[in-house]
Amino acid sequence: MSTPDELPLIITARAPDGPGLVADLARAVARSGGNILDVGQHSDPDASWFGCRLEVDDHVDRAVLGAQLSELRDQRGLAFELHESAESQRVVIVCSKTLHCVSDLLARVSIGALGCTIEGIVSDATTAEELAMRHEVPFYSVPVEDDRHHQEIALGATLEDLAPDLVVLARYMRVLPAWLCDAYDGRMINIHHSFLPAFAGAGPYKRAHERGVKLIGATAHYVTAELDAGPIIAQDVERVSHRDSVDDLIRRGADVERSVLAAAVRLHLEHRVMVFGNRTCVFD
Amino acid sequence: MSTPDELPLIITARAPDGPGLVADLARAVARSGGNILDVGQHSDPDASWFGCRLEVDDHVDRAVLGAQLSELRDQRGLAFELHESAESQRVVIVCSKTLHCVSDLLARVSIGALGCTIEGIVSDATTAEELAMRHEVPFYSVPVEDDRHHQEIALGATLEDLAPDLVVLARYMRVLPAWLCDAYDGRMINIHHSFLPAFAGAGPYKRAHERGVKLIGATAHYVTAELDAGPIIAQDVERVSHRDSVDDLIRRGADVERSVLAAAVRLHLEHRVMVFGNRTCVFD
Amino acid sequence: MSTPDELPLIITARAPDGPGLVADLARAVARSGGNILDVGQHSDPDASWFGCRLEVDDHVDRAVLGAQLSELRDQRGLAFELHESAESQRVVIVCSKTLHCVSDLLARVSIGALGCTIEGIVSDATTAEELAMRHEVPFYSVPVEDDRHHQEIALGATLEDLAPDLVVLARYMRVLPAWLCDAYDGRMINIHHSFLPAFAGAGPYKRAHERGVKLIGATAHYVTAELDAGPIIAQDVERVSHRDSVDDLIRRGADVERSVLAAAVRLHLEHRVMVFGNRTCVFD
Amino acid sequence: MSTPDELPLIITARAPDGPGLVADLARAVARSGGNILDVGQHSDPDASWFGCRLEVDDHVDRAVLGAQLSELRDQRGLAFELHESAESQRVVIVCSKTLHCVSDLLARVSIGALGCTIEGIVSDATTAEELAMRHEVPFYSVPVEDDRHHQEIALGATLEDLAPDLVVLARYMRVLPAWLCDAYDGRMINIHHSFLPAFAGAGPYKRAHERGVKLIGATAHYVTAELDAGPIIAQDVERVSHRDSVDDLIRRGADVERSVLAAAVRLHLEHRVMVFGNRTCVFD
Repeated sequence: MSTPDELPLIITARAPDGPGLVADLARAVARSGGNILDVGQHSDPDASWFGCRLEVDDHVDRAVLGAQLSELRDQRGLAFELHESAESQRVVIVCSKTLHCVSDLLARVSIGALGCTIEGIVSDATTAEELAMRHEVPFYSVPVEDDRHHQEIALGATLEDLAPDLVVLARYMRVLPAWLCDAYDGRMINIHHSFLPAFAGAGPYKRAHERGVKLIGATAHYVTAELDAGPIIAQDVERVSHRDSVDDLIRRGADVERSVLAAAVRLHLEHRVMVFGNRTCVFD
Repeated sequence: MSTPDELPLIITARAPDGPGLVADLARAVARSGGNILDVGQHSDPDASWFGCRLEVDDHVDRAVLGAQLSELRDQRGLAFELHESAESQRVVIVCSKTLHCVSDLLARVSIGALGCTIEGIVSDATTAEELAMRHEVPFYSVPVEDDRHHQEIALGATLEDLAPDLVVLARYMRVLPAWLCDAYDGRMINIHHSFLPAFAGAGPYKRAHERGVKLIGATAHYVTAELDAGPIIAQDVERVSHRDSVDDLIRRGADVERSVLAAAVRLHLEHRVMVFGNRTCVFD
Repeated sequence: MSTPDELPLIITARAPDGPGLVADLARAVARSGGNILDVGQHSDPDASWFGCRLEVDDHVDRAVLGAQLSELRDQRGLAFELHESAESQRVVIVCSKTLHCVSDLLARVSIGALGCTIEGIVSDATTAEELAMRHEVPFYSVPVEDDRHHQEIALGATLEDLAPDLVVLARYMRVLPAWLCDAYDGRMINIHHSFLPAFAGAGPYKRAHERGVKLIGATAHYVTAELDAGPIIAQDVERVSHRDSVDDLIRRGADVERSVLAAAVRLHLEHRVMVFGNRTCVFD
Repeated sequence: MSTPDELPLIITARAPDGPGLVADLARAVARSGGNILDVGQHSDPDASWFGCRLEVDDHVDRAVLGAQLSELRDQRGLAFELHESAESQRVVIVCSKTLHCVSDLLARVSIGALGCTIEGIVSDATTAEELAMRHEVPFYSVPVEDDRHHQEIALGATLEDLAPDLVVLARYMRVLPAWLCDAYDGRMINIHHSFLPAFAGAGPYKRAHERGVKLIGATAHYVTAELDAGPIIAQDVERVSHRDSVDDLIRRGADVERSVLAAAVRLHLEHRVMVFGNRTCVFD
């Protein structure tokens, strides 16, 4: 991995699998005057696809590199993206009344620990407003009044205005309509307060308590139209015991949720996550 | 916790919850000349029951203690058991073709790391026979021939002959009939190769791979008539990534299964597990 | 464990070990009309002491309980404290330029996740001032100018004015004088950015990188006059690899430091930590 | 990662770092008709070296590949090795009286879970003899009689006769002489029962108990002349509490030792460990 002051260029690429792809990519970088600092690569035998993430040092000639990669696109079906690692991304947080994930993300951003700006906090409640003000982040209230559909339209419009690179559902307690999930496909991360696929849906800690599990967990995943079923980015667990009440599980779980969500957001912002089908490659 | 050479007496007790139960138990021990070395206690607010595990030093007068506890049984509905910790228990292992859990248990017993004797290995396959011979453990073959019901009868009869204190299903790949589960209620431990309740049933690693989870797990639980739904004793997980094939998950998971099963067996043998409803208290 | 709305009374007690202490304490509670909700107890065979933490429900008569426990003090040398769990404690944070622990503690307090108020942030740098202002917490600058001794006096005086129940060194990068450590004995928690006793002192991540460890860690401990040698409250680790540079270790470690420090502060505020010699009992 | 039936060829290579090395290696594979199944690569900015592990499918022409890599050796200073993954390696275990690691390794090998044969067990005690017999492994006794130096000579001679690819010190309780460490440089793995560099040397669990740590650990490392200071391959930890006596730590730690040692042996046998200076790259 590179040190922060190098500000490398990040290449993400995918292609139908075939021999020599790593060689081709590495040659493209070498011809552009760049040196590979870090390479993550994966060939999936089931799906016959190839995915790759390269960090290249600053000496690379971007124009030459672009031309080289375009050639590979034509020859081998390579899809690629170039990202300047110095570039700050626009993030919008969507939440309800539970604030530990929001306050954690804000605390990290406020000390520069996540490479992004928070463009707004959008909520169906008003609980987060004070937190938003404290961090000088615009707050947008999209309450559900008479009609759930109207609220979804309002939420969609608010997001569209903010033009985020990434939307983070930080314990937003409503199911989003399919059209909104689709609009942010691969750019909307949710934190679910269980170790998916266990306890998908509502009330996971209560159900975990009833089942008597010895570990609880949290899962950060990309949002898809099917509830709690999108590609998983990060998961973690915490040991619990019979002595923990549902409230204890909620408290202990909150800590796991915070760190799992922050990890997933960081991985996404650093272009370390690649989605294939319903699974992710995480090049960390 | 006590040191091995003390060989304490272990008291397990349960009762309808009420004030002063710990005081009553502690007084019973004190009156019997014993000193409490370790106390684990749990009051469950939901179920209104009280459970307790006490380790008492060797000075205790067992007759006096028995009388004292019987008094509490009459007064407060206390159910109790006394266990000599020095006592070795009889364990029977039931398995199929996958042997990592069996070989691990045998390896532990062979160096005295589990306080039990293995009275027999019972299997629907013959793969484990060599392992049994090597460890001088009787091997019982109960193959499924024309009729699954006959095999279940044979398995039940074999177990009955061996009169085990504990039956361990060490990756036995068949569903047991309800009558057999009932016969060993609270005395039969199964290892399931997933983090329950996720991926109950067959093929958990394949399904974990398809879902793209970032952690795999194993669960040791008491067997009940409902498949993979009995009270959980121990669980653990291991980190995996997109680079792991199903075969990799199987290999990595094997290590978790081994240690989780061994931990659950040890906890049971040390009388550290108490079942209330479908949940366990583990006094470790 | 109790649910938050019960607001139980917490009893912490210690005494020279002897038979019947649990019975005596439980009887004292029963006689005061209280019911034991949770009991943590430890008899240390090496040191011949006994420590106990009891959560008692709100029905207890505090005056009767106090009299009962005073009797035990006279008879058995019991030292005890009573704490109302509803009571908010006064915390002062001391830090330097590294702010992830400070911002994490403030984020938790701001959503009510830690039962305390932050009375002030004291620092030898000014980096944390903006964070303090944002959270409306008084900021106290105690820079080192010509004389380190003067700064220590100023720090001591600032702390004294703030009259904290607990002082948290949240990555304060200076060694405190013995007189200041002594003044807050058992009430000052430090986070050290290594898995103590490995890498005590300065530059732990650099040294961890040089040694090629596969896990890095963090340790929260009570401060004593000997550097990084006080009683340990909480520790955790995180997996690292050869791919992690020193900067990566610093970033990954920051997350462990945050959660370990927050856990230790919570345990202390809930009176779950008892110090015996240079070791802690943690009744969690 | 590859599936077991593919039996890929493994290439390990190292060179002074420079641009285009990955491209060169990938081209060499492609020209030999092979397809890259898995690539692990690391460029160390501190030490200016490059290391790589490639798994190549069975279609590769070994002669062409050898020629291609030899060219890179001449041009770029590349040092390389080719390993058939199907090849079973010769392992010798050295132990004293503590047998949990030995019995665990034997249990794994006996079910084919480690790709090696155990050529012998060598010990300064006789405790392991029965275990060796049970597993039909030759046992070699090298007791210390009057002279430690004589014993070291005998141990060295026994190892030399057995011609192992790998020597595993499975809780061997003696310090080896430098000449013996040197003879098996990079081919001798030791398990130390602490989280190194904490508690190097004798009695780590006793010292961990005295220090009051909240986690204990184990470390597998290559043996060098300096005690417990060689390159670390694998480490893991386990949570402990004030309730654990030294004996409890020994029992809990045993489980960590077993799994860490087995993991390190597997990683070594699969040619996944590369040593640079005093650090390892682990391509897992």
